[in-house]
Amino acid sequence: MFPSSARRMALIQPFHVMEVMEKAREFEASGSSIIHMEIGQPDFGAPPQVLEAAVAAMRESALGYTSTLGIPELRSALAKYYATTFGVEISPERVAITAGASGAFLLALGVMINPGDEVLMPDPCYSCNPNFVRMFDGVPVYMPVDEGTLYQPRLADVQNMWTEHTRGVLIASPSNPTGTTIAARELAEITEWATARGGFVIVDEIYQGLNYDTPPETALATATQSWIINSFSKYFGMTGWRLGWMVVPEHRIRDIEKLAQNAFICPSAPAQYAALAAFRTDTLAVLEDRRRQLRQRRDFLVPELRKLGFSIPVEPAGAFYVYAGCHNFSVDSAALAFRMLAEAGVAVTPGVDFGVHRANQHVRFAYTRSMQELEEGISRLSRFLAR
Amino acid sequence: MFPSSARRMALIQPFHVMEVMEKAREFEASGSSIIHMEIGQPDFGAPPQVLEAAVAAMRESALGYTSTLGIPELRSALAKYYATTFGVEISPERVAITAGASGAFLLALGVMINPGDEVLMPDPCYSCNPNFVRMFDGVPVYMPVDEGTLYQPRLADVQNMWTEHTRGVLIASPSNPTGTTIAARELAEITEWATARGGFVIVDEIYQGLNYDTPPETALATATQSWIINSFSKYFGMTGWRLGWMVVPEHRIRDIEKLAQNAFICPSAPAQYAALAAFRTDTLAVLEDRRRQLRQRRDFLVPELRKLGFSIPVEPAGAFYVYAGCHNFSVDSAALAFRMLAEAGVAVTPGVDFGVHRANQHVRFAYTRSMQELEEGISRLSRFLAR
Repeated sequence: MFPSSARRMALIQPFHVMEVMEKAREFEASGSSIIHMEIGQPDFGAPPQVLEAAVAAMRESALGYTSTLGIPELRSALAKYYATTFGVEISPERVAITAGASGAFLLALGVMINPGDEVLMPDPCYSCNPNFVRMFDGVPVYMPVDEGTLYQPRLADVQNMWTEHTRGVLIASPSNPTGTTIAARELAEITEWATARGGFVIVDEIYQGLNYDTPPETALATATQSWIINSFSKYFGMTGWRLGWMVVPEHRIRDIEKLAQNAFICPSAPAQYAALAAFRTDTLAVLEDRRRQLRQRRDFLVPELRKLGFSIPVEPAGAFYVYAGCHNFSVDSAALAFRMLAEAGVAVTPGVDFGVHRANQHVRFAYTRSMQELEEGISRLSRFLAR
Repeated sequence: MFPSSARRMALIQPFHVMEVMEKAREFEASGSSIIHMEIGQPDFGAPPQVLEAAVAAMRESALGYTSTLGIPELRSALAKYYATTFGVEISPERVAITAGASGAFLLALGVMINPGDEVLMPDPCYSCNPNFVRMFDGVPVYMPVDEGTLYQPRLADVQNMWTEHTRGVLIASPSNPTGTTIAARELAEITEWATARGGFVIVDEIYQGLNYDTPPETALATATQSWIINSFSKYFGMTGWRLGWMVVPEHRIRDIEKLAQNAFICPSAPAQYAALAAFRTDTLAVLEDRRRQLRQRRDFLVPELRKLGFSIPVEPAGAFYVYAGCHNFSVDSAALAFRMLAEAGVAVTPGVDFGVHRANQHVRFAYTRSMQELEEGISRLSRFLAR
């Protein structure tokens, strides 16, 4: 007799983009050429300074367990980064280094929600958000958002969806999959309102720094009671290293530490020592150059996709995604995405990865590959859609 | 108003050894010399071949996200390792690479237990085991074990403690904190019995390879329906790299993959490429030499502790721990451990980290430091206890 799995497993959805990536790899293994516009991973890799710091750490240290919340130097470096980049003063004690932003979500929700608690989040949003909530037998509740509000929730949405079971709100800015940011004042109002009701607001800022039209912001500047989740994966180019961080409200640091001691022991030591080099002036110069390249890609891709007939009502201001309406071609975006992969050799992520609201009318393009590849992708799609 | 934390946080205990380590660091920061016999981390660090492989990977690859269950080369290398070392054939598909053994526990229990489900485990056992269960609102149930059964549970213990709410059993061999192994036949019987009742058995083999009196074994050889959790931290010396693995029963691979996609995306890419070098003949030669050094340390430490008056009724056959009765000195092992740290400059872990059964009469010594340090530790303790 096979033991059955936990009830939550029937609710937890696969992270579809990982499945698209696996499928794309299968096509490649059988000889097909695939343009990868599915995955949220820049083609750059970690900056050279970060790699050198990792190599130096391997030569100099045994790279054993670190303190559970991270090496003090990195926690201090992050506190200083908030001060110099955003003019926000926080104590290094509030910075928890985590196993990617994923580890931060897991810790924050593990500390905050009971089975049955509801957590609000926009639809569309990051694929894993509802599943983090379900891991702890909480109930994710979608707030459908549209282009009219730049795909971001307003205070009224939170108020409308809030019940006696609601414990908190997840918000992302810049957002995956839409690339849009939330207005600082709106976010502050939501945080104040939720906090007054004993709720929490977690702000996912993992695309911070990848802003193309206005300077990057942090919710810490205005929504001072929010939880902040961030990552070395995106702006800092360290995806595979699995390193993130969280700025924790003071009264919950001890809970986060206790849960992290048990669930992770500590974050990756090589990644932490490597990340120390991320804030050097010459590293930041590399990252700014990459940001300019990403903006160039966005400025190419968005009008080209519009020309092909995709609907992009809102210019994505950040991250490296275009959330594109595909209703001109199909009302089954998953089927369309599969055909684009199999017949055009272009991998994209279907809307179903981000929620249910108009999901079947949208696909997400990532502009994480070179201009040359993006041009080839557009030309393949142009032939495919003209059939 | 501060939102309150989840109910589970009142049940989840700190990982005390991490607290002892922090305390020891504070003493060191204020100028004290501390002999570290508290933490389960060998002083060796990763073998040079592993470091070289990591450096090579950084030069050759962008180290992006890998497949969620790990790079195929590493999953295959592990399957081969089971075949060559233990004569056990498993499909690489059953091997899931994880963020340390911690990540494996989290995935296995996240997939298998519902709120309220009971999970049996020996007392004493690894500190985090009950807390992994509590993370998913399960109920850890201790089976008190003693020297008479080498601190391992027998089938009768499992049968006695099994209720209609019991979902599974956690067993470790070699065990932390006792260093003892479970007989293959006993483990097979427990697994067969539990599986027949729709339960699971998870066998923690993270100290596998650190066996000093008999060759290492795996539960896979006899308890073929068990889940196996293992790690690159201990025998392979990669603690800070946070890399482990799990051998998953075939019918649960998909659930593990789905949960891991959401909770981790993937394990650390640098660590995975580094670990590929762990199975090279010249690496294994280094590791065997280290094993011999650890045996020498054990053979020094156990009789010396007995001479000092610690009670060690069972010779620890593996891992790098001595679970020592301290009733000759104190019936409050936490207070004794604190005095040993503060007054003798010797850090050890109090029994409370491993359960409740006779916990106040035991401390755990780790022999993860050099012979010279162990000798100094013994001489400090000798002076301290003679006061």
